[in-house]
Amino acid sequence: MTTSAEARQSTPSDYRILNETDLRNYLAETPAVTAQLGGSADHWSITEVGDGNLNLVFIVKGPSGGLAVKQALPYVRLVGESWPLPLSRAHYEHLALTHQGRLAPALVPAIVHHDPALALTAMELLEPHIIMRKGLVAGSIYPAFTDHITTFMARTLFFSSDLALSAAAKKDAIASFAGNHALCKITEDLIFTDPYRVAEQNRWTAPWLDRTAAEIREDLDLHVAVSRLKLKFLSSAEALIHGDLHTGSIMVTDTETKVIDPEFAFYGPMGFDVGALLANLLMAYFASAGHEQTPGNREVFETWVLATVDQVWSAFADEFLSLWRKEATGDAYPPSLFPGEAGAARLEVERQAYMARLFQDAVGFTAAKIIRRILGLAHNIDFEQIEDTKRRATCEARALRLARTLMVETASFTSIEAVTRAARESRYWRPGF
Amino acid sequence: MTTSAEARQSTPSDYRILNETDLRNYLAETPAVTAQLGGSADHWSITEVGDGNLNLVFIVKGPSGGLAVKQALPYVRLVGESWPLPLSRAHYEHLALTHQGRLAPALVPAIVHHDPALALTAMELLEPHIIMRKGLVAGSIYPAFTDHITTFMARTLFFSSDLALSAAAKKDAIASFAGNHALCKITEDLIFTDPYRVAEQNRWTAPWLDRTAAEIREDLDLHVAVSRLKLKFLSSAEALIHGDLHTGSIMVTDTETKVIDPEFAFYGPMGFDVGALLANLLMAYFASAGHEQTPGNREVFETWVLATVDQVWSAFADEFLSLWRKEATGDAYPPSLFPGEAGAARLEVERQAYMARLFQDAVGFTAAKIIRRILGLAHNIDFEQIEDTKRRATCEARALRLARTLMVETASFTSIEAVTRAARESRYWRPGF
Repeated sequence: MTTSAEARQSTPSDYRILNETDLRNYLAETPAVTAQLGGSADHWSITEVGDGNLNLVFIVKGPSGGLAVKQALPYVRLVGESWPLPLSRAHYEHLALTHQGRLAPALVPAIVHHDPALALTAMELLEPHIIMRKGLVAGSIYPAFTDHITTFMARTLFFSSDLALSAAAKKDAIASFAGNHALCKITEDLIFTDPYRVAEQNRWTAPWLDRTAAEIREDLDLHVAVSRLKLKFLSSAEALIHGDLHTGSIMVTDTETKVIDPEFAFYGPMGFDVGALLANLLMAYFASAGHEQTPGNREVFETWVLATVDQVWSAFADEFLSLWRKEATGDAYPPSLFPGEAGAARLEVERQAYMARLFQDAVGFTAAKIIRRILGLAHNIDFEQIEDTKRRATCEARALRLARTLMVETASFTSIEAVTRAARESRYWRPGF
Repeated sequence: MTTSAEARQSTPSDYRILNETDLRNYLAETPAVTAQLGGSADHWSITEVGDGNLNLVFIVKGPSGGLAVKQALPYVRLVGESWPLPLSRAHYEHLALTHQGRLAPALVPAIVHHDPALALTAMELLEPHIIMRKGLVAGSIYPAFTDHITTFMARTLFFSSDLALSAAAKKDAIASFAGNHALCKITEDLIFTDPYRVAEQNRWTAPWLDRTAAEIREDLDLHVAVSRLKLKFLSSAEALIHGDLHTGSIMVTDTETKVIDPEFAFYGPMGFDVGALLANLLMAYFASAGHEQTPGNREVFETWVLATVDQVWSAFADEFLSLWRKEATGDAYPPSLFPGEAGAARLEVERQAYMARLFQDAVGFTAAKIIRRILGLAHNIDFEQIEDTKRRATCEARALRLARTLMVETASFTSIEAVTRAARESRYWRPGF
């Protein structure tokens, strides 16, 4: 394994940015790739997708199959060289994807080839999958999604936690991701800090949300709450989290779900992944009114997406608890302290209490992830594709209203039903503009 | 800096256990040492102290000065080769001592020389300091102690926390201590696990405490509480903690305080250090009745030691808060989110809430540290030197009674005065044997 220090060298000497011709020549000499694509390299089709925020992404197709090839650039692709970002993120992404692939092989793309020097990974091409967020904007329903995503979260989080790992293995794992701080810093700044203060990169649907944005910049209860969440993100090494688990990092068909892009992975609070997902489902719900073509034409979708919020938490909790009951090989909660029937019963009560604490974290992080997408730098198409800005702002204001309550009154949300009930109430709230 | 992986090699090829002659020859060729000791190496006096639980400790004296030389053995000295322990602990101790020496130079021994290959460190000889625990058993009072130890704790903890460090620097620091898992494992087993179950190494003052020990092994509320503390120890990377901050790791005179032996150091919960200290002061208080020669002859000492418990927390909290107000250079609680007078006032309220949460942690860890010293493997002379076993067990039972309450009803202890009040009540409790 590459050490953290090596991986952090931002531009290893063998690194070069590949154009289409370079990539073709490079892949032609990579046996795992040629086996996958088949035929002659000269006839492979290679297309740079052009929609990565951070990286180059090529779709490569041959007679036998296809690949997605992702190469990290030494800067943020969307912004350019003025925003440098270390190539080491490709190393951490590969490490995380390997971990996830071991635990949930059907739910992530298979790795075909990884080149640390080029910060390049070739993966199974996901076809005909689409980015889930696009499907949600279109009002599509994914009946298999809850089962898949909760399996992904429960397994990747549980098996990297103190409930499954020895303390020594966990400390080594924490250290192996410690170098990924540039990516963590993006989260720390853009999610937990900038939306709550004047920051050049912030934007929102003006002029409608001007007042709300100003109120949030002055809401000190909210600033305390988000600072506590940030502290948890900085200091709670609970499990290997994906770190960016929104609906743009998930590719779906009616029957399949694949989680991609774990380059923000590190040992952090589990609630951050759960909250990221819940937040993005809730935003799909609030944005839905903005995509309504005829009155009620999104009703089935909205009912489904809110039910999915409910079920994502419930099924995740069930599966996590089930793993804990069956595969508790870690150093936390040693079984020897809970012997016999009485011990088992008491431990079960504590498991429920543990999940209740995790739920509280998830509620807080849900709120943080909503607020950053509406008032911070990075927005999402759920809202952005609502062309009428007043209509869009109405949807966004409703989401912000829920988020503010979730973050400041977290303790009053003791069940996922309380969250979806509050979401349903906010859905019909009319902001005063 | 030696990398974590290098330091973990348990027996580097240049390692050898030094006898007195080896050490003399080795030190004679070490300029920093010869400068400190003066004269001819042939005439230095070298004595192996023989009281280290884990390591060899030599006192070396020359005409100009003295040194303490500590060499790690590849096993636990007290037990022998049947209990291997990696030499890397000398590396982590040196790293921690360097950190502490930078932040609290008057409060730790100065390092004169460190040899990673030999797992050896030569330090300033502390004379006429004695191990504080011995002084407490003798009923001595240390008026300067509170001020010193709270400065040590506040500065070493604050400046390694997210309140002072950037997230990147903190992650690197966490990684640099991640390899110290063998020492952490000792804590995990001996403090958070074994005293609560049947374990070969457990011992207690039989037959008097047989029933109490059995009750604690069956007390499921206590097992849940200690498991939560263990989980915090495993997953809360709050600051670089000493990891073994009891009164046997502190050397004192009337006017000086030196903290030694930080080989258990790693990034863990701050409350563990605070709790270790409070627990050991409370044990000195409970043991005092057992050292009473004439009725009331320890009253002044007991009043002082309980007042010290009060003041240690209060002064620590004051100093930590003062550092936070003046030197908050870390990524947590960004000042830009708390602008103006209203922001400053709200942040101050949150600082108090932060300290209240830290206090809760400290109360729990205090309890864990008391219980392990009475029912686990490692006992302390506070109690052990009370020869009459019934008298000793009475003192121990009182301490256990307090500890049980502190751990299970932690939330009801909202101030240090509540803790000392409960201690005073337990001091006169008569166990039913």
